Amino acid sequence: MDMTDKKLSGAGLRGQSAGETKLCTVGKSGSGLTYCGYDVSDLADNASFEEVAYLLFNGELPNQAQLTEYKAGLKAQRDLPQALKEVLQRIPADAHPMDVMRTGCSFLGNLEPETSFDQQHTAANRLLAAFPAIMCYWYRFSHENIEIECTSDEDSIGGHFLKLLSGDTPSEQHRKVMDVSLILYAEHEFNASTFTARVCASTLSDMFSCVTGAIGSLRGPLHGGANEAAMDMIQKFSSPEDAKIQMAGMLERKEKIMGFGHAIYRESDPRNVIIKKWSEKLAHEFGNTSLYDISVACEEYMWDSKKLFCNADFFHASAYHFMGIPTKLFTPIFVCSRVTGWAAHVMEQRANNRIIRPSADYIGAEPRKVTPISER
Amino acid sequence: MDMTDKKLSGAGLRGQSAGETKLCTVGKSGSGLTYCGYDVSDLADNASFEEVAYLLFNGELPNQAQLTEYKAGLKAQRDLPQALKEVLQRIPADAHPMDVMRTGCSFLGNLEPETSFDQQHTAANRLLAAFPAIMCYWYRFSHENIEIECTSDEDSIGGHFLKLLSGDTPSEQHRKVMDVSLILYAEHEFNASTFTARVCASTLSDMFSCVTGAIGSLRGPLHGGANEAAMDMIQKFSSPEDAKIQMAGMLERKEKIMGFGHAIYRESDPRNVIIKKWSEKLAHEFGNTSLYDISVACEEYMWDSKKLFCNADFFHASAYHFMGIPTKLFTPIFVCSRVTGWAAHVMEQRANNRIIRPSADYIGAEPRKVTPISER
Repeated sequence: MDMTDKKLSGAGLRGQSAGETKLCTVGKSGSGLTYCGYDVSDLADNASFEEVAYLLFNGELPNQAQLTEYKAGLKAQRDLPQALKEVLQRIPADAHPMDVMRTGCSFLGNLEPETSFDQQHTAANRLLAAFPAIMCYWYRFSHENIEIECTSDEDSIGGHFLKLLSGDTPSEQHRKVMDVSLILYAEHEFNASTFTARVCASTLSDMFSCVTGAIGSLRGPLHGGANEAAMDMIQKFSSPEDAKIQMAGMLERKEKIMGFGHAIYRESDPRNVIIKKWSEKLAHEFGNTSLYDISVACEEYMWDSKKLFCNADFFHASAYHFMGIPTKLFTPIFVCSRVTGWAAHVMEQRANNRIIRPSADYIGAEPRKVTPISER
Repeated sequence: MDMTDKKLSGAGLRGQSAGETKLCTVGKSGSGLTYCGYDVSDLADNASFEEVAYLLFNGELPNQAQLTEYKAGLKAQRDLPQALKEVLQRIPADAHPMDVMRTGCSFLGNLEPETSFDQQHTAANRLLAAFPAIMCYWYRFSHENIEIECTSDEDSIGGHFLKLLSGDTPSEQHRKVMDVSLILYAEHEFNASTFTARVCASTLSDMFSCVTGAIGSLRGPLHGGANEAAMDMIQKFSSPEDAKIQMAGMLERKEKIMGFGHAIYRESDPRNVIIKKWSEKLAHEFGNTSLYDISVACEEYMWDSKKLFCNADFFHASAYHFMGIPTKLFTPIFVCSRVTGWAAHVMEQRANNRIIRPSADYIGAEPRKVTPISER
């Protein structure tokens, strides 16, 4: 078959391989989601987010000495340069929080550029360490007029984020749930934002460009943001019974219901059972289980009526809400997690690179001549 | 054939169609490069860059009334918000100029977001109008400590850029060459930066995210930057004879010589003959044709010894140099031009969208269990 004869069976490169990866499997039979061979539920139960970041960047889980050193290195890089703080101060409160993350990442690339691929781990870890402060510094400055400290004594990235967001020391359970959440969102093969990062990496561009581009793709409503949409929905329901009645109306009006089904998973999202369990525990700690009960009613209704299952996003909505996280920061938290997967894919693309440059089928005008403007 | 059985014949999606386009053909027999059916040489001879931008955004060339209105609209949008100027002031002089363009685009998206696709022309035109000022404001503030005015009376985008860069009114010939150059770089089908923009657009993200991501991809040395590399090379040659001797040495040492050959064109790059002609005219205006003569010697040598032809980038190096443009701004000028192609592809992707989400071939670890950290 001639190269030029190849056609897509479907749009969006669906089902087309765009490369090889050692990082992840999604929806393979017998294992829902694996990172470097480990099932995500095993990692959520038996590892921390920092161990998962180390795994994605290095291919193996760290031993205790490696993890201690790695976490100390991340902790030392949490603060933001003064110039970046001044940029964040100039972003209005009504800006899209993903525009803030994209800009914070891009600006940091001016101050601390990755000038050689020898620095790829340094650049990736710097972004991983700095993103919670980029998000929280802007949020609290623009919404509360507070210039926060960007460092904390919190041991984990999840705890650090919660501390910066509220100013208060988080509970042990909140730390744990945020850690699990960051693990669940860390990596997901060639999704659109990760593929954006790999296309950018294939030109041999720098890490900050790749991650900036990925943030821009995650911003799109077909990609990130489903947990925010789920939150907006469940907050409108007054009770489990009301949820079922209102969802029936939404389905009848063919409104899109976010947080259910998945482009690749066919029977269930392996991340749902994990975050659902934690959402329930948080509901009890919160002292009002209403939002959790409503969420369970939604899950039952969608399964009974449409055979649609909850994806990772649905119970994240209530879980984040119980921890006091504003809805508009849900997708930026996704960035704080997925930067690990993005950066790992950038490193993998660089290690065996060819520029990603597909073809297009031309369906436009036949050859024509420019008419003088006076005759148009 | 089962969906999961599809394999790439080569990496980088080469020869794989990733969608349809009405915007461009590259390397089709009988016509080297067409925008919406018009040969690029016809457009370079008989249209202005603003007409080409209008063509890419609307599918047809404007009549005089449409063009007058379009140019007036662009001219009114050249200035930068004060907050963006303050951000650009905080980017150091030794930053990568493409990091500046990426950050300027991203930051503008915070201040003037595209909140509905109804605004896509507004957002695209705003970027087209503002990029020369983003580039020149940063350059002259960081390199010359001058806060320039970001508006000018220049009629064209090319003339406006030259005016902001030097502060002086450009010659008619310089205006014309810059206009032609912007036409030549405006669009090139599914190249890596444009494909980045389309992947981002496929999540239904906003125009600023798409263009920000595209800038990040163009920054890579396998994509943009060939004209800068060509400039660095020809400046080292003292004469046409010296050029041939030194190039022979470079080929013998298997060093990469930029500005020759092309991933898609096989016999010639249709843009070369156009910019070469203008480079020669500029050389005579400049009063010293040495750099042009050296460039011609390089062209002859590469053809005679390797049957490699000059691509669009090679004579752009000397042409830009004769107009007094610093080498580090060559790729940012590419941004000022290609934003038209990127934005047109974003609009096209949106009009017939499916999220771009390819698959990957897994070559990683077999399923394994997390070992307790104390036993690693």
